[in-house]
Amino acid sequence: MPKNNNESNTPLDKLGEFGLIKQLTKDFKIYHKNTVKGVGDDAAVLDKTNKQSVITTDLLIEGVHFDLGYMPLKHLGYKSVIVNLSDVYAMNAAAKQITVSIAVSNRFPTEAIEELYAGIKLACDTYQVDLIGGDTTSSTKGLLISITAIGEANKEDIVYRNGAKSNDLLVVTGDLAGAYMGLQVLEREKQVFQLDPNSQPDLSKYAYIVERQLKPEARKDVVGLFKDLGVKPTAMIDISDGLSSEILHLCEQSNVGCNLFEEKIPLDPQVISTLEEFELEHTTIALSSGEDYELLFTIAQKDYDKIQANPNFTVIGHMTDKTEGIHLITRSNQKMELIAQGWRSF
Amino acid sequence: MPKNNNESNTPLDKLGEFGLIKQLTKDFKIYHKNTVKGVGDDAAVLDKTNKQSVITTDLLIEGVHFDLGYMPLKHLGYKSVIVNLSDVYAMNAAAKQITVSIAVSNRFPTEAIEELYAGIKLACDTYQVDLIGGDTTSSTKGLLISITAIGEANKEDIVYRNGAKSNDLLVVTGDLAGAYMGLQVLEREKQVFQLDPNSQPDLSKYAYIVERQLKPEARKDVVGLFKDLGVKPTAMIDISDGLSSEILHLCEQSNVGCNLFEEKIPLDPQVISTLEEFELEHTTIALSSGEDYELLFTIAQKDYDKIQANPNFTVIGHMTDKTEGIHLITRSNQKMELIAQGWRSF
Repeated sequence: MPKNNNESNTPLDKLGEFGLIKQLTKDFKIYHKNTVKGVGDDAAVLDKTNKQSVITTDLLIEGVHFDLGYMPLKHLGYKSVIVNLSDVYAMNAAAKQITVSIAVSNRFPTEAIEELYAGIKLACDTYQVDLIGGDTTSSTKGLLISITAIGEANKEDIVYRNGAKSNDLLVVTGDLAGAYMGLQVLEREKQVFQLDPNSQPDLSKYAYIVERQLKPEARKDVVGLFKDLGVKPTAMIDISDGLSSEILHLCEQSNVGCNLFEEKIPLDPQVISTLEEFELEHTTIALSSGEDYELLFTIAQKDYDKIQANPNFTVIGHMTDKTEGIHLITRSNQKMELIAQGWRSF
Repeated sequence: MPKNNNESNTPLDKLGEFGLIKQLTKDFKIYHKNTVKGVGDDAAVLDKTNKQSVITTDLLIEGVHFDLGYMPLKHLGYKSVIVNLSDVYAMNAAAKQITVSIAVSNRFPTEAIEELYAGIKLACDTYQVDLIGGDTTSSTKGLLISITAIGEANKEDIVYRNGAKSNDLLVVTGDLAGAYMGLQVLEREKQVFQLDPNSQPDLSKYAYIVERQLKPEARKDVVGLFKDLGVKPTAMIDISDGLSSEILHLCEQSNVGCNLFEEKIPLDPQVISTLEEFELEHTTIALSSGEDYELLFTIAQKDYDKIQANPNFTVIGHMTDKTEGIHLITRSNQKMELIAQGWRSF
């Protein structure tokens, strides 16, 4: 939360736009030798490579995508980068550079923006990406972050959404619904805090899911794993909008159907216990909750042996002929039509 | 201005995010064969080229950068693209692709966003750039546009801000202060309209400067001219924040000084007459007014013959040793120190 009662506050306009950019970006390292020119000219310059480039962009807006009531600015900076890197990894590519544009209202002192950039820098260092440019401006209301990420991969390694074939296995990394359940806990604590500002929430029993919400990671490791295992997914997408929505994208673009098995959907024990505490239906939340930034992909059946022993991967279904439709097979072996926000019974 | 009284209005949420993106982008053409994948996957994919890439990004915010009270949405879309392309041309590069992210409050119907995209498409077609991705989201207030532009050039052709040498000539394209004076006229008419909504402003005598504000162009032609004339500037920047501010950037990054001659600054007759009508001091406005999107560059003296006959170029000064400082030489031959917002007398 931006603190305006801090004695070391510096108004944003004190440094001017160019001074502020210099101040915010001075400690960033350049990791990639194809970054010829980063911040400081009309445009950044990247050297040619013998790979293809991937480019993705995301916009995060206060009051829509985040609430500074429980999202520390440093975490927000980190997460804003992760959201974009996740899209690069979903192409089976290596993330290399980002641009970061922010708009801030004058309620934010310079120190708050420095916190935000500390998180951006931590993500850049952790994932070895170069900050190469951006724009800094004032806003009439709130904080807004627009990031563009650039990556690269050999042409033959890039994985699109449209390559899934009938009989391919549907696989997900990690576990689902953690970020959403973390958000439920944080929203509840915020309400408690509003009623009693002296309350000291004990979030230790929710540590995993709160971290999934506040400090998610992107699956760079999985791109490396594919290489090590000699597996190239036939199609891939990252899970930002919820499992069922992403399955529908894969099916639509690959022109196939799908059977998803309810009993296979991976949920962490802390997610399950919190779902029970909040009296929420497991599968509905697992299908519709976003922001997990896991990868959802399909592989040919012949590759099953290569991934089956790896704890990062869970096979949750298989693709079918398009005419068979897109279904959830429940624990009681019922077949439900999958829709964007979950499922619909016949 | 978004019209909510139009009978054909469609609420933005009717199509959903993915439906809306499809609808908005379906008519865009792909001009460049290195655009392997545009809108529709986790990231866009560009094929490798044997050139260097340039990347630039800009954020435009309602109430800060534009006023929908006099900026039609189609013009806004066009201008948002131009602002970014101008930065690509300022690197002496060819613009190839853009991503466009928008955030809109629910006061905008789908038709308003279609208008915005009609302007974006017009710019893409006029400048032959490919729309390859973006993000569409809701905002809590107003309209916001974040564009990233990607271009390319041979390594040896890219022009940075830091290459100017003492004795190089300082040259500007086109003429200055038009966009700012167009804004003054539009602001005045807006006030008249607020007092009398039936007023019918006659802007015909301000046609040039109003167009400079509402529908600026980027100097793609100048990048072509440099090639034809066999000239490579030693340093270059686009004029978005005002002549004096840009001169200071060139001098700082090139580690040189500069003498700028007041009598050489190119002003259109319509700018001059409007400056007089508004009783504004010519040189102050010419130095401090932004949004002209002309190019400011330096060339070696030996190249003077190649550019001198061309009406696109005006030599306005020359670079000096850094120790000589950065000065405006007035019509009366006085030497004033140049500062970001204009000049300061000794």
